[in-house]
Amino acid sequence: MTKRKHEENGNGTEENGNNGSKKNKTDSLEGGEGSKAAKQLHLTAFMRPVSLHTGAWRYPGAYPDANFNLTHLKSFIQKLEAAKFDAFFMADHLAVLNMPVEALKRSHTVTSFEPFTLLSALSQVTERIGLAATASTTYDEPYHIARRFASLDHISGGRAAWNIVTTGNPESAKNFGQDEHMQHSDRYKRAREFYDVVTGLWDSFADDAFVRDQKSGTYLDPEKMHVLNHKGDELSVRGPLNIARPVQGWPVIVQAGQSDPGRQLAAETAECVFCSPKNLDAAKELYADIKGRAEAAGRDRSSLKILPAAMIIVGDTVEDAQSKRLKVDSLVHYDSAISSLSIALGTDASEFDPDGQLPTNLPETNASKTSRAGVIKLAETEKLTVRQLASRYGGYAGLCLLGTPESIADTMEEWLKEGACDGFTCVMPFLPQGLDDVTQRLVPELQRRGLFRNDYEGTTLREHLGLARPKNQFFE
Amino acid sequence: MTKRKHEENGNGTEENGNNGSKKNKTDSLEGGEGSKAAKQLHLTAFMRPVSLHTGAWRYPGAYPDANFNLTHLKSFIQKLEAAKFDAFFMADHLAVLNMPVEALKRSHTVTSFEPFTLLSALSQVTERIGLAATASTTYDEPYHIARRFASLDHISGGRAAWNIVTTGNPESAKNFGQDEHMQHSDRYKRAREFYDVVTGLWDSFADDAFVRDQKSGTYLDPEKMHVLNHKGDELSVRGPLNIARPVQGWPVIVQAGQSDPGRQLAAETAECVFCSPKNLDAAKELYADIKGRAEAAGRDRSSLKILPAAMIIVGDTVEDAQSKRLKVDSLVHYDSAISSLSIALGTDASEFDPDGQLPTNLPETNASKTSRAGVIKLAETEKLTVRQLASRYGGYAGLCLLGTPESIADTMEEWLKEGACDGFTCVMPFLPQGLDDVTQRLVPELQRRGLFRNDYEGTTLREHLGLARPKNQFFE
Ligand SMILES: Cc1cc2nc3c(=O)[nH]c(=O)nc-3n(C[C@H](O)[C@H](O)[C@H](O)COP(=O)(O)O)c2cc1C
Ligand SMILES: Cc1cc2nc3c(=O)[nH]c(=O)nc-3n(C[C@H](O)[C@H](O)[C@H](O)COP(=O)(O)O)c2cc1C
Repeated sequence: MTKRKHEENGNGTEENGNNGSKKNKTDSLEGGEGSKAAKQLHLTAFMRPVSLHTGAWRYPGAYPDANFNLTHLKSFIQKLEAAKFDAFFMADHLAVLNMPVEALKRSHTVTSFEPFTLLSALSQVTERIGLAATASTTYDEPYHIARRFASLDHISGGRAAWNIVTTGNPESAKNFGQDEHMQHSDRYKRAREFYDVVTGLWDSFADDAFVRDQKSGTYLDPEKMHVLNHKGDELSVRGPLNIARPVQGWPVIVQAGQSDPGRQLAAETAECVFCSPKNLDAAKELYADIKGRAEAAGRDRSSLKILPAAMIIVGDTVEDAQSKRLKVDSLVHYDSAISSLSIALGTDASEFDPDGQLPTNLPETNASKTSRAGVIKLAETEKLTVRQLASRYGGYAGLCLLGTPESIADTMEEWLKEGACDGFTCVMPFLPQGLDDVTQRLVPELQRRGLFRNDYEGTTLREHLGLARPKNQFFE
Repeated sequence: MTKRKHEENGNGTEENGNNGSKKNKTDSLEGGEGSKAAKQLHLTAFMRPVSLHTGAWRYPGAYPDANFNLTHLKSFIQKLEAAKFDAFFMADHLAVLNMPVEALKRSHTVTSFEPFTLLSALSQVTERIGLAATASTTYDEPYHIARRFASLDHISGGRAAWNIVTTGNPESAKNFGQDEHMQHSDRYKRAREFYDVVTGLWDSFADDAFVRDQKSGTYLDPEKMHVLNHKGDELSVRGPLNIARPVQGWPVIVQAGQSDPGRQLAAETAECVFCSPKNLDAAKELYADIKGRAEAAGRDRSSLKILPAAMIIVGDTVEDAQSKRLKVDSLVHYDSAISSLSIALGTDASEFDPDGQLPTNLPETNASKTSRAGVIKLAETEKLTVRQLASRYGGYAGLCLLGTPESIADTMEEWLKEGACDGFTCVMPFLPQGLDDVTQRLVPELQRRGLFRNDYEGTTLREHLGLARPKNQFFE
């Protein structure tokens, strides 16, 4: 397995102002009282063109055609860049038929631009913001993935990130010549090896391999080219990659798994972790667990940033924000609400009594186990009926930070200081208004408190995130 | 197999001014004397960032770093757009190790941007010019390919084209988990089925499938969605594709195969055919053959445009152009010259006596058969030694149109009028100068003669090429 080597971080963006190894550090809070500069939040936007919230396309002012209208996407990313966001993330899925037709009919989330083409286009209308594409390790080839991210990184001047997913949706298999979705544990096994191959391919050429000496006619130095010759359990890839080493060395690695193998993959590979903890305690547990696993894997705690995903709803008052949430939730049709619940459970929920409790004899699932367990827990804790659960899952089921700019900033500050996160992955409840509320109302409040940057300091995504540029594992 | 249906071409760009079927037409010349408007050339630029010519990176004024410097690519495509070119084509390959290390060392062509990320970025700095990406049917999945081209087509407002290749370079196999390159005939069999799947996926949704009715909550009409359920010899893909039908219906299909199965694939599927005939007679034979095969397959002759690839070298005089060619050829190092010959032959030529003739007992090849046959023929016809052959193949081995703007325009006019082509795929000998010579000297001469457009008439690549927008095969 690839052993990560990190270069000295020369740009002073490590949060605790300490460039050396932090192996001896026992305090779980980075940038605590002893640090030179106060720790700041990292903010990314986790996007689908119309929003991740299923009712959003019907919200007043929404752009229901944003899935295929680049103009809207350009304005979103430009606003996020003006607000100095670390990155713009594109969610991605590989199948349409993961819900009954009655729900599909309501869905604005299954069809949209493909991430690499979209982010490459958006790289030309922005200058600093990071560009994170979701790509599957289950249904793609490492040579293609390595190459495309390297190319996006070159094209954008060092702003690419890879959101590694193993693809939860079992319907995807049928679009790629397979009858059955690969088992959860096999998907994670392949993902881990896939990561080794991709990062190995990124290191195919030393940074100074391309000599381009017109006089002697030497274009590249073959001594500075590494042939990977990977032959593993799942993959066999010779290399080298047909592209120079990415500007960032490696594009930033992002990972979202929450199950045990998901957390382990994050701990071993990720530099940015999305996750979806339900509350502060769960976030602290997850934070400590993943950072602990990373340390156990020989990594520095500060080499991965944990950014819980949260839908953010800003109002003039808490009640105003609550009523916005009620409004957008009310726009989710029951047909899709119930099917979202089915997906979350990995079981068809349309047969259940809408006004009864969730049955206790639910079957196991090969889709996301974390998700299924989450539904069961929520139903128990809040004693929700199937209908109530469905409208929660039909809209956006994850963490929601809701209130005034000040109250949301209070919560974010608390999470940061309590060691529950290094920032947030912001989910917009509806667009463009929900995004404007975040960039124009919440961000200035965070900046006023010194919790968020007033301007970018570097040019690459690694620099925004305070991550070192990885050393080439095959060359000094 | 997919039967192609074509919509009426409403924009009057069919060259012979005749929208109906031309089944009865026996004359092999389209747009002959009887036509309303004089037939014009189509021009595309076939590119590698530094040039396709192996010596070009050492030519005075060259940009040897263009492989990873987007600024240069932007200026090239903007110049081509200003000259009203139909399309910008990106060649592509999937392996580095297809030559001995002594040649690799000299090569600027093996490493560069990946086509989808590059063309998506370039779509944002241009408005009209077509964007053609090369993508392999041997080493990729139809769901990914269909999706990416559809996305590029949406992002660019209908300017995408797919250069279907089966990948000649046998080294590619090892980067995709295979020990051996798929056999030539199997590659073409898979390519044909792959085309059916991709075009079937593009037709997943009727053009009016996305209703987006905010009141009723219906986002899409499932009656206007087609589930492909393809199960063939090589591929099994369920669908539907997770993206709306492309702006052009289908991105333009381009194909370059020249062997018998290559020609047949072109005849059945392509709308734009690259090819590399050596002279006027060979071009006429190829033109008549492919158009004839297309008719036999039930297609209209005008539904495919044949654009032979030609390197264009413009000089003040013919001698001046010749000396430019000598100069750029002289910059090819012998180490790469001999290995280019080896690739063209599919056999290691470095063992042959440089000053002797090509051995007569050459082994068969699983790479390109056309290419091997071409070398043997050239050696016989021009009685060239191995060394002489090598320097020809080491630079650019294909057709070269060389002379003054007037003499090159004469040749192009002759080829067009003689029924040898519908235009040209221009290969630039060196950049930026060779490209400037074409756009600033040759194109104005062609425009003066009425042989090339003075401005774009439509907005999509199909409109530039005078190709109808395909009907959706599953919906009226
Ligand atoms: C914030 C967030 C965003 C995610 N985005 C995607 C996505 O775009 N595409 C995808 O296939 N899975 C996505 N996932 C799913 C994860 O990749 C993973 O499958 C899921 O968290 C379940 O993890 P587990 O299999 O470890 O239980 C996302 C998860 C989270 C928490
Ligand atoms: C002008 C031209 C451009 C080509 N571009 C590519 C390319 O970018 N990538 C590739 O793999 N093959 C490319 N090819 C090769 C063809 O796809 C095909 O393999 C070759 O013409 C041999 O055809 P055959 O296998 O039918 O003999 C090109 C061929 C021609 C004539």
